[in-house]
Amino acid sequence: MDNEAPPINFDDLLEQLTAAIDTSDSGKAMSALQEADVDDTAKLVDRLDADQRTKLFGLLSPEQSAEVLEHVYYFQGADIIEELKPDAAAPIVRLLDSDDRADLLNELKDSDSEAILDELDDKVAAETRRFMAYKEGTAGALMYSEFVSFKASMTVEQILNDIQSKREKYIEYGVQYAYVIGARNVLLGVLPVRNLLFALRDQTAADIMIPDPITVEADTSVLDLENLFEQYNFLGLPVVDARKRLIGIVDREASTESLQESATEDLLKLQGLMGKEELRSMPLGVRSRRRLSWLSINIVLNIISASVIAFHQDTLEAVIALAVFLPIISDMSGCSGNQAVAVSMRELSLDLINPKEFGRVFIKESTLGMINGACLGLLIGCLAWFWKGNVVLGLVVGGALALNTTIAVCVGGLVPLLLKAMKQDPALASGPILTTVTDMCGFLLILGLASLSLPYLV
Amino acid sequence: MDNEAPPINFDDLLEQLTAAIDTSDSGKAMSALQEADVDDTAKLVDRLDADQRTKLFGLLSPEQSAEVLEHVYYFQGADIIEELKPDAAAPIVRLLDSDDRADLLNELKDSDSEAILDELDDKVAAETRRFMAYKEGTAGALMYSEFVSFKASMTVEQILNDIQSKREKYIEYGVQYAYVIGARNVLLGVLPVRNLLFALRDQTAADIMIPDPITVEADTSVLDLENLFEQYNFLGLPVVDARKRLIGIVDREASTESLQESATEDLLKLQGLMGKEELRSMPLGVRSRRRLSWLSINIVLNIISASVIAFHQDTLEAVIALAVFLPIISDMSGCSGNQAVAVSMRELSLDLINPKEFGRVFIKESTLGMINGACLGLLIGCLAWFWKGNVVLGLVVGGALALNTTIAVCVGGLVPLLLKAMKQDPALASGPILTTVTDMCGFLLILGLASLSLPYLV
Repeated sequence: MDNEAPPINFDDLLEQLTAAIDTSDSGKAMSALQEADVDDTAKLVDRLDADQRTKLFGLLSPEQSAEVLEHVYYFQGADIIEELKPDAAAPIVRLLDSDDRADLLNELKDSDSEAILDELDDKVAAETRRFMAYKEGTAGALMYSEFVSFKASMTVEQILNDIQSKREKYIEYGVQYAYVIGARNVLLGVLPVRNLLFALRDQTAADIMIPDPITVEADTSVLDLENLFEQYNFLGLPVVDARKRLIGIVDREASTESLQESATEDLLKLQGLMGKEELRSMPLGVRSRRRLSWLSINIVLNIISASVIAFHQDTLEAVIALAVFLPIISDMSGCSGNQAVAVSMRELSLDLINPKEFGRVFIKESTLGMINGACLGLLIGCLAWFWKGNVVLGLVVGGALALNTTIAVCVGGLVPLLLKAMKQDPALASGPILTTVTDMCGFLLILGLASLSLPYLV
Repeated sequence: MDNEAPPINFDDLLEQLTAAIDTSDSGKAMSALQEADVDDTAKLVDRLDADQRTKLFGLLSPEQSAEVLEHVYYFQGADIIEELKPDAAAPIVRLLDSDDRADLLNELKDSDSEAILDELDDKVAAETRRFMAYKEGTAGALMYSEFVSFKASMTVEQILNDIQSKREKYIEYGVQYAYVIGARNVLLGVLPVRNLLFALRDQTAADIMIPDPITVEADTSVLDLENLFEQYNFLGLPVVDARKRLIGIVDREASTESLQESATEDLLKLQGLMGKEELRSMPLGVRSRRRLSWLSINIVLNIISASVIAFHQDTLEAVIALAVFLPIISDMSGCSGNQAVAVSMRELSLDLINPKEFGRVFIKESTLGMINGACLGLLIGCLAWFWKGNVVLGLVVGGALALNTTIAVCVGGLVPLLLKAMKQDPALASGPILTTVTDMCGFLLILGLASLSLPYLV
């Protein structure tokens, strides 16, 4: 990176910031935050404890606080706002862009966001509520209302004068497109600002606009947005309501970022982290409770599947060697099934498969499951045979793993589709469902096969 | 979505496309592909088998093929190109943008990409090789060389004439910035095209440019790029070499997309899918082999940890109830550890933690591990106690789970940092390492504690 002052040591900055908080020196605190590289600002805020953070944002003006919020991750911003009193939070929230404001309030508990909305002007509060209501992953949730529009009858001369008079704002906002509207805010066309270069001064907005532009509606999905952006190479798309009135603009950047966030969320959920982002700077109690809430569901499912073993204790007592293979069956089937879960989630997120295409997935996964099951079963079967010198033990163990791998791969492939078709979140529930089903089947198979062939095993 | 023709049924389109391929009718094939919605193009190509795909791209002209490639996912494009002969692939690859061309060739096997590079003109091949050499996740790997530059001495008049004469190209490329260069291509400034609106015709590029612009180097990381884009609200950043010569431009869009791809890759790797993207349209043999390669490492690790059980068969034989708890210990410790893996991977990807901060992670995770371990251990310990009416069994089982959860959470938190510090990929190896360590420790703990307290258990 270029044009940088010599980098300041992170630890020194942190010390400067905490000292400034201790001595209530808002100027020194703000300068520590501003001296940091952009990514270090997030890290600085991360390393303060909750008390220090609350005190810091008590010292800063709303404008300064909003500036800091723009430089930290959105989930850090939500934590900060949640820690403040509503009357302290509202003036900061007021200064954010309409889309950021709605995103941030949606991250808070309902009671907290309501309390902040009550402190805002009626007009801002109403707009924010409308934005908050759009479903995640749609154009409505990503759009912002800070756009530039001109009446169709305005001349290029008038538009240029308008731009000249507001050039500071235009340059700061990085305006690329203006929107041409008719009566009752109906969208008529899009006007790329740079097209003004090629226009005559007495032409009107209607003359030089791109008429009948591609538009989206508030419920258009992010995936459809990405496809449109890719096809047409636009930077932004106008969002209209059922009467074709312009209600907002959605940026390509916001749409791609939203896809990134949902990939990250899926990763966290698949690994057993529910709800909001977890950072190690959060209070221990909060982190522990959130992780436990998922673990406690899992342990109940685990006990249910392990009860299959309890019912077959006699078999196990007769052939104790089977106990060695129970965790292997459980682990390996889980791994094989998780691979299929990942492929299904990927195909769903790329829209390459319809949640109803159970047949296709079943055929593709059952054949693959049989091949991989046969390979793994053969390996583990031979191992069991040679270890105890008993070919029937090999057949029982290998057969159980082969069959259960096939089941696990099919279940893993189908569960995300099923959850999606039922409008549930595949990332959160696929893992526990898969594990429970495959553990139960696996234990039943190995112990059931063993009790059927018990005379040959002992 | 607006301005759409009535949607054509996907199955009809697929039928039309396969019929066109069977009858070698390139016109009909292309029209089927063009009639599809953008996202359906990818799905159409996905549903063809390898033979049909090869035949299709044999029918289409290089221009038509390149158009189709732009509308499918990049990993589909790589599969298509890999299936073609180098002399058929090269004219298509030639038509792609410099960054897309390098990305696509990097997805291929080395021998395949070399064969295609040999078919390209020397100049294009040399540029492509240079682009291919940049490390993934850096500005070099994301930049493109199709930018507009003007000499510093050119007047606004001359620049406007140049733009007017090439307006078609400028509008198609969606050019927002031009770059002002001095002797030996040294970058002097950036010229937002729309700034020409506010300029006098006899000013020079040097007069109206933004001098000393923010630049990045080819090895600047995506995370640093994102931070700069966020801080300055730029759409693109110039990439310069050590002598400040302009070598390419990196877009905000490309940078965000790259972050999204790496989040997705991490998800796939954590779920046990190595290497390239897997789609169900790929040949069964390829899918099966790829999944098996990861499973076969895992099964060996599984056997190693299960051997701990084999060495304690006597204890197990004496207290058969323990066998019920072995898979529970293994599963629950794995779950707890995976949560910590996810938090570490997230903090690493957000740059909120340095891979060397083992102490911080250890303190944060060990305290959390003790709390959650105590909760889970208490639950499972009581269950064991009440089931068999033996308090010592409860202490053994509960104690083992409590201790092993603490270990698993610490290991899960630390392994991604350790792998990152060793320049290894945390997503691929964290899971298997975690499972092996926690299974071995868990089995040792429960069976070890049980053999120590054997007199009280039987």
